[in-house]
Amino acid sequence: MNILYTLDLIGTIAFAASGALAGVRRGMDLFGILVLGMVTAIGGGTIRDVLLGDLPPFCLHNEIYLWLPILVALFVFFTHRRWPKFESLLLYLDAIGLGTFVVIGTGKALSFETGPLGAVLMGVMTGTAGGVLRDILSNEIPLIMRREIYASACIIGGVSLVLLRLLEVNNTLSLLIAASAVIVLRVLAIHLNWSLPKAS
Amino acid sequence: MNILYTLDLIGTIAFAASGALAGVRRGMDLFGILVLGMVTAIGGGTIRDVLLGDLPPFCLHNEIYLWLPILVALFVFFTHRRWPKFESLLLYLDAIGLGTFVVIGTGKALSFETGPLGAVLMGVMTGTAGGVLRDILSNEIPLIMRREIYASACIIGGVSLVLLRLLEVNNTLSLLIAASAVIVLRVLAIHLNWSLPKAS
Amino acid sequence: MNILYTLDLIGTIAFAASGALAGVRRGMDLFGILVLGMVTAIGGGTIRDVLLGDLPPFCLHNEIYLWLPILVALFVFFTHRRWPKFESLLLYLDAIGLGTFVVIGTGKALSFETGPLGAVLMGVMTGTAGGVLRDILSNEIPLIMRREIYASACIIGGVSLVLLRLLEVNNTLSLLIAASAVIVLRVLAIHLNWSLPKAS
Repeated sequence: MNILYTLDLIGTIAFAASGALAGVRRGMDLFGILVLGMVTAIGGGTIRDVLLGDLPPFCLHNEIYLWLPILVALFVFFTHRRWPKFESLLLYLDAIGLGTFVVIGTGKALSFETGPLGAVLMGVMTGTAGGVLRDILSNEIPLIMRREIYASACIIGGVSLVLLRLLEVNNTLSLLIAASAVIVLRVLAIHLNWSLPKAS
Repeated sequence: MNILYTLDLIGTIAFAASGALAGVRRGMDLFGILVLGMVTAIGGGTIRDVLLGDLPPFCLHNEIYLWLPILVALFVFFTHRRWPKFESLLLYLDAIGLGTFVVIGTGKALSFETGPLGAVLMGVMTGTAGGVLRDILSNEIPLIMRREIYASACIIGGVSLVLLRLLEVNNTLSLLIAASAVIVLRVLAIHLNWSLPKAS
Repeated sequence: MNILYTLDLIGTIAFAASGALAGVRRGMDLFGILVLGMVTAIGGGTIRDVLLGDLPPFCLHNEIYLWLPILVALFVFFTHRRWPKFESLLLYLDAIGLGTFVVIGTGKALSFETGPLGAVLMGVMTGTAGGVLRDILSNEIPLIMRREIYASACIIGGVSLVLLRLLEVNNTLSLLIAASAVIVLRVLAIHLNWSLPKAS
């Protein structure tokens, strides 16, 4: 699964950068920025591994998942004045990361023999729980609970993967289709400014 | 243990409804309301299972614990204007859930051979940690740390169960007695407006 | 390792006292004060054990780690008016606890065969995650992400232990040296009012 691993590392970088930038904006010191970068990048997959009982989690097995967010957060710390130009690029990388994280999480849960709903839930958590932890640590209401189509894209990606597996579509192909669904939905949501209904 | 299972499902419904209503009141979108409903209903038992190392947790083994909160949260989302009438009914259902969750948690911890204090702690967490997560996700100080007799009722329920087990009272009977203790205390606390002392 | 166990209990008492005092200052009731005392004292080690998959965690194996924080929190609740005199003493005890927690966490992770970075990370979490949970439960931005040299001292302690182990220095000796490094740095940071740079 080399392509998925590459996408996973791209996503890790994008999530770490967005977490570190959130730390810069919120006036944190260097340590706070490092923590937000790491938590955003690896928090979701770590919570998934805790719930599946696959411990120690992925980031303690393969330390590239620890080094990458640290290097990215340091880079953001020293160059953050130039970042506003790249924010829209970051949104696209973030979409790639989101799609990849969701299908990795859903696929892993299926291989741990959770039911279909549990697998979708694990996928959504892999994609979103890092950002939720970032917002909790910054003392803000998690963005995801008040924002345009973000979690919905994850749900659709997770459901797609479960269905493609039921239809016995080739493993790699299903992962790529489901991840693409999330990425396309996210990009459309950003461009068309979609949002979920609120209880009025 | 069919009666305990029934009470457990009633409690799950009540906790999910109160979580979803909190989401409505706090102006969240549909996804936020779903998350708060699920977290409130299954967060406590999930944290308990993580700490006991019984993974994947109960809600990934029996997906009714995932479907019920989702359906309840959707129901609340579409009918929330009519809920004020039912708030007092919800308080009673919540008390039933609390008592049931506490004794299930304490009993499970005892069967995992924790000590007596650890078992009471696991029972209290099963009953209360879902609500704590709900409040953290809504960026509020957990209600339980500032409110009338709620955790105290849980502690008394957990201690009762540990004592009844030490006295070798019949298993089912001890669970029902200890759960009833919590429920009665909660109902009294609501009606008599009891509260714990603060440090002045 | 009797000296390390003694230092560990001193640290548990100091962390419990600082957590309980935070609860008093934030106007919580008795239960809230108990929770903040316990969470501050045992939260870091518990999260470490969850991530290492060593479950149930240390505090459910040896209940002295549950009883001590409860007794300390009760003591603080009934005597908090006299505490301002002891705050500086508490800062020193807190430094002892921090150094001890960090080396215990790092050492334990190494014995679970995490890599060097993962081991340092587990040490830092053992020392700091309890305080982070205390602040999240009090709805504040974790102090550690905005404060003088605190986490940095932990990182230096963890890195020292990893290096001393690589150099095959005697086990007990490395633990004591690394713990002392954290304690000395903390005391200096308090007296000299050091802080980390912010992104300007």
